[in-house]
Amino acid sequence: MLRVGMLTSGGDCQALNATMRAIVKTLAYNTEGKLEVYGFLDGYQGLIRNRYTRLTQEDFAATLTHGGTILGTSRTPFKELDEPTSDGIQKVPAMVANYRKLKLDCLFMLGGNGSTKTANRLREEGLNVIALPKTIDNDTWGTDMTFGFTSAVEVATRCIDDIRTTATSHGRVFVIEIMGHKVGWIPLYAGIAGGADVILIPEIPYDIDKVVDAINEVHGDGERYSIIVVAEGARTKEEASLSKKAYKAKVAARVKPSVAYEIAEEIARRTDREVRVAVPGHTQRGGAPDAQDRIFATQCGVEAAMGCLEGKFGFMVSQKKGKMCRVPLEDVAGKLKYIDPDGEVVREARALGISFGD
Amino acid sequence: MLRVGMLTSGGDCQALNATMRAIVKTLAYNTEGKLEVYGFLDGYQGLIRNRYTRLTQEDFAATLTHGGTILGTSRTPFKELDEPTSDGIQKVPAMVANYRKLKLDCLFMLGGNGSTKTANRLREEGLNVIALPKTIDNDTWGTDMTFGFTSAVEVATRCIDDIRTTATSHGRVFVIEIMGHKVGWIPLYAGIAGGADVILIPEIPYDIDKVVDAINEVHGDGERYSIIVVAEGARTKEEASLSKKAYKAKVAARVKPSVAYEIAEEIARRTDREVRVAVPGHTQRGGAPDAQDRIFATQCGVEAAMGCLEGKFGFMVSQKKGKMCRVPLEDVAGKLKYIDPDGEVVREARALGISFGD
Amino acid sequence: MLRVGMLTSGGDCQALNATMRAIVKTLAYNTEGKLEVYGFLDGYQGLIRNRYTRLTQEDFAATLTHGGTILGTSRTPFKELDEPTSDGIQKVPAMVANYRKLKLDCLFMLGGNGSTKTANRLREEGLNVIALPKTIDNDTWGTDMTFGFTSAVEVATRCIDDIRTTATSHGRVFVIEIMGHKVGWIPLYAGIAGGADVILIPEIPYDIDKVVDAINEVHGDGERYSIIVVAEGARTKEEASLSKKAYKAKVAARVKPSVAYEIAEEIARRTDREVRVAVPGHTQRGGAPDAQDRIFATQCGVEAAMGCLEGKFGFMVSQKKGKMCRVPLEDVAGKLKYIDPDGEVVREARALGISFGD
Amino acid sequence: MLRVGMLTSGGDCQALNATMRAIVKTLAYNTEGKLEVYGFLDGYQGLIRNRYTRLTQEDFAATLTHGGTILGTSRTPFKELDEPTSDGIQKVPAMVANYRKLKLDCLFMLGGNGSTKTANRLREEGLNVIALPKTIDNDTWGTDMTFGFTSAVEVATRCIDDIRTTATSHGRVFVIEIMGHKVGWIPLYAGIAGGADVILIPEIPYDIDKVVDAINEVHGDGERYSIIVVAEGARTKEEASLSKKAYKAKVAARVKPSVAYEIAEEIARRTDREVRVAVPGHTQRGGAPDAQDRIFATQCGVEAAMGCLEGKFGFMVSQKKGKMCRVPLEDVAGKLKYIDPDGEVVREARALGISFGD
Repeated sequence: MLRVGMLTSGGDCQALNATMRAIVKTLAYNTEGKLEVYGFLDGYQGLIRNRYTRLTQEDFAATLTHGGTILGTSRTPFKELDEPTSDGIQKVPAMVANYRKLKLDCLFMLGGNGSTKTANRLREEGLNVIALPKTIDNDTWGTDMTFGFTSAVEVATRCIDDIRTTATSHGRVFVIEIMGHKVGWIPLYAGIAGGADVILIPEIPYDIDKVVDAINEVHGDGERYSIIVVAEGARTKEEASLSKKAYKAKVAARVKPSVAYEIAEEIARRTDREVRVAVPGHTQRGGAPDAQDRIFATQCGVEAAMGCLEGKFGFMVSQKKGKMCRVPLEDVAGKLKYIDPDGEVVREARALGISFGD
Repeated sequence: MLRVGMLTSGGDCQALNATMRAIVKTLAYNTEGKLEVYGFLDGYQGLIRNRYTRLTQEDFAATLTHGGTILGTSRTPFKELDEPTSDGIQKVPAMVANYRKLKLDCLFMLGGNGSTKTANRLREEGLNVIALPKTIDNDTWGTDMTFGFTSAVEVATRCIDDIRTTATSHGRVFVIEIMGHKVGWIPLYAGIAGGADVILIPEIPYDIDKVVDAINEVHGDGERYSIIVVAEGARTKEEASLSKKAYKAKVAARVKPSVAYEIAEEIARRTDREVRVAVPGHTQRGGAPDAQDRIFATQCGVEAAMGCLEGKFGFMVSQKKGKMCRVPLEDVAGKLKYIDPDGEVVREARALGISFGD
Repeated sequence: MLRVGMLTSGGDCQALNATMRAIVKTLAYNTEGKLEVYGFLDGYQGLIRNRYTRLTQEDFAATLTHGGTILGTSRTPFKELDEPTSDGIQKVPAMVANYRKLKLDCLFMLGGNGSTKTANRLREEGLNVIALPKTIDNDTWGTDMTFGFTSAVEVATRCIDDIRTTATSHGRVFVIEIMGHKVGWIPLYAGIAGGADVILIPEIPYDIDKVVDAINEVHGDGERYSIIVVAEGARTKEEASLSKKAYKAKVAARVKPSVAYEIAEEIARRTDREVRVAVPGHTQRGGAPDAQDRIFATQCGVEAAMGCLEGKFGFMVSQKKGKMCRVPLEDVAGKLKYIDPDGEVVREARALGISFGD
Repeated sequence: MLRVGMLTSGGDCQALNATMRAIVKTLAYNTEGKLEVYGFLDGYQGLIRNRYTRLTQEDFAATLTHGGTILGTSRTPFKELDEPTSDGIQKVPAMVANYRKLKLDCLFMLGGNGSTKTANRLREEGLNVIALPKTIDNDTWGTDMTFGFTSAVEVATRCIDDIRTTATSHGRVFVIEIMGHKVGWIPLYAGIAGGADVILIPEIPYDIDKVVDAINEVHGDGERYSIIVVAEGARTKEEASLSKKAYKAKVAARVKPSVAYEIAEEIARRTDREVRVAVPGHTQRGGAPDAQDRIFATQCGVEAAMGCLEGKFGFMVSQKKGKMCRVPLEDVAGKLKYIDPDGEVVREARALGISFGD
């Protein structure tokens, strides 16, 4: 009898259920059903408090197309890992104890960067942990792709599509804020897919003068409208030169709710054009996973399950250069994968005439 | 030879092209092509300045699925109709003169309430005008339905759907701002379709205490999440009792960008729950029209064209109790169709347990 | 304590779960939870064999967007109602007995024409029955609308949309078979929404010569492609004049799998054009319900539940002229609602230049 | 002044316009508009007959989301390349002459395998040719990905999704025929994404006994329904052992319209279960390209344009291991990329319990 635990941690995404389904189906098929799966509720919180639900294949019968996670999720900040909970539970010892008490052979952890750090900590404590790269942001170090990413790009692109028909009809400048606080993968990809004129991402600090120039050039060519895609974490060159603390203070002091509103106001002021802002927000992490996401999620789930069946632990599932592989947890924990400002996709976008405002 | 003019006025919507296609196809088919169509650019502005493009069936070959308007649109406020343009053109006389100069037999005007008032003014000046009820807001008096409405409800509902998967996973309160400044048709319908717990619309002023009660009740029943749909123009009972001027001043003085943010903050403060705001914004008037919208748009276009071919003018196309009909322009111009707070759909929503915060 | 039964019967559709959710939510809200719901499995089969599952609001938490039915469904032909099952159960007495045994106050039956006849029979046997008009076909007599219809039209229209891009690129004739054996509501509405050139429906028998003429005319006008929407039950004038038995024999003797293939072959032979056939089939009754469908489904569910709470039974929920109402089961049982060949929508389609091949 | 020709050849797909847009935008941006683009109509037919349209960036303003090709397309079989047209034109000399007459610097050819062979022939004749890997089938040798593929997988997956709700409700076996005559990329990927139980592809000949066993096993586990995805070119082990000629004869002699119908009949006969067939057909190559497809299409277009600007010709744009590159036309012309039956994706599908009927 194989006994495994499973949890989903951090921000949710569209393909969490599809990934868990693949893990459970693969384990069930290859153990001929000699399997017990403990699904911890609300991320690491469930492991800390031993709150779980037993899971079988049937629980996933209809979930391939369902976004979110049937286990619930929560954020459990790594830096507070050694602080006790509000009611005095020591987190790490509790998690280890509960894992032992349930006699688990393995813990599958579906999470992003921060969650992977915690997973690595549990590995160091002697638990058999396998991590799976979940995040819409595609910023997990050690893998070319994360599940959630293509679906988020699809939703974000659909938003730009929807807005374009209005932009065309009214002849305006549209500023669309796309998710990405520290990295700009979704804005970059959705911006290209949606035909943006300007894309502003954290990795390439912008200069508002350059942004205005780019907009004027678009309209100078006779185009009625222009579309600016702004990452949540887009920053000016000046802001990028601030200390982390000073930048945080500046963001906190914002009167406008986000950078997109600031940029919109500035462009309106400088170009005398009508500018509108759209903030699709959390819709970007919801809805059904697209086909590509489900395929990759399934690949991740199978790879993780096969590792467990082979008795291999302590790794994160990864895809590199189109091939599935496994990377040591200790190598990836806590590292972010940024966009290379001189990399292929940015170069292609520039070749097409897209401005990054730099 | 039949010579007709056409223009799209006010905020755009998904089914403008589909409607124009139906007008032109019907006219072309029934005149055996003895037809000249002048499409005025950017709404009444094109008629004022005689800027137009000649249109044929071919121009609409691919537009059935395209949101926006191939003619462009603009807002030409009725109350400024007798003021000259910035470069000194007298608007009404210019429109009449251009209509005469092109020897038009009829002007098709696709627009909402304000635009219909201007159309009625042109009718009073002796022009043959036929209006078609365009607006995502469904607030045009004299018709049960407007084109654009079902598509907007579809987009708004999809946003709520997308957000629900995250709401479920994280267990939060979500406040979603849906279009509707003066009327709440889209929020009401999308709220029902999307399974909202609370719907706040301009026609039913709310009491924040009642909203908080409703949310607490939802969570008290063991539900992890709750969804509040807020119309852009939702207002408290207190705000509703203000004079129009005082209310406008209060809105203008808002620190938060909109009422949704205000409500979210208040709920967070009072319930100690995590609250998130989503503002899908202009996506609600974009993208492809849904099938129902295209059918209704086609019906409107056919009805308008048939009226013209019969030599009947001065009406707005309308649907009442499921039947297409024509209503005198003078009867509908400038009136808004509000939701009846005691009407069928609100009663049904209440029967289902949805709170209106009153 | 209110005790109600519920079953879904006949072909499934997108909004069955949405409708059941509205019934259960309304009953639960208005009885303050003093409610027991018995969901019979697989349609009348579950009632015959007393196979059921207990349902609560929680079972419907996520189903608003889920097509199909969580209860399962089956066809139980009315004409075999007085024949015993293969294992000797007398159907009607068994259903009555199980209803009595569970001490039900009411049975909610979500089904189409045939299922409504059986519901009426149970009413005659003294049960409290409330029927809800489920069918993608929109052919239920006594109501202007059925739930399932708008979603099916949406899917069918999307198929035509998808095919148009290929038709445009290759310059072909496309024959698309749309669901509708006895009535043509989906083909008529999807044909208009999708911009079909020719629509063939059971209610308007066609003449292949006229179809070929229409196609030639489209291409004669310089158009590269043409689209023919064919109902599953489209028939020639000759076929329409056959006796029911002779027509059935002719259909059974078909070599091609359906009428669409026959028509395609004939057009290819007569016009020397490339013709392609598409048969989207059961996709038309699947996937998520669209927003309109969910709203109407919710209205139906609320109306049915309110009837039950008021102690009113023996009716079918209906929408007429845009208003919800209740019609006696005996008045609607077993009657089909056909398209009026001289009615509004057909006249509009003809005004637009669409050919019905007659 | 740069003068380039462009044509789209073979079956259409969703991302042709998006690819052409990227080529033209990149060339225009990098030549500062010193550019003339000749778009040949209907594939090589336009080059043979010198029928073209002049293209500018504006022609592509709205095409990013439009499937099909604004140039039209046609099939020009390679093996008939040295036969004259029906009206006596020698194809290859005519194409070379027209290229010379227009003083073209380069010809961009968007096409699949057969079309690439013709492109290579033109290269051999001394023309500057750049090919771009267009096909929904993903079977182009020399590249890991083709544009059109992910969109087709998306549509095919959506069909499976739509059918699942009905399959679940009724408890049936569903056979869904997915595009792929010679290769099974779309069926394999859509089958995984859609949660198929059995996937039958040309590369893995099946044994009907094994298929029936797999279906029985699914239902034996208590599942109500099962889904079989069948490639158009799925073949039995016996058929796979036939000579090409004998196999073609067998296919031509089919009474049923396709292999899916044959398999469905056989399963119905052997399992006594209700079986339904769906044939989404050409919908799979239509509609809007998904975001991934648009991104890859854009990358291909940029890479092709940059090659031209660098004076590099005679290559096909390709993506290998996640990186864009260029492969010599002579190396790829006329070769098909088959699925490796022992490759990663098939192994993953097997690990999950999916049967290939072998």
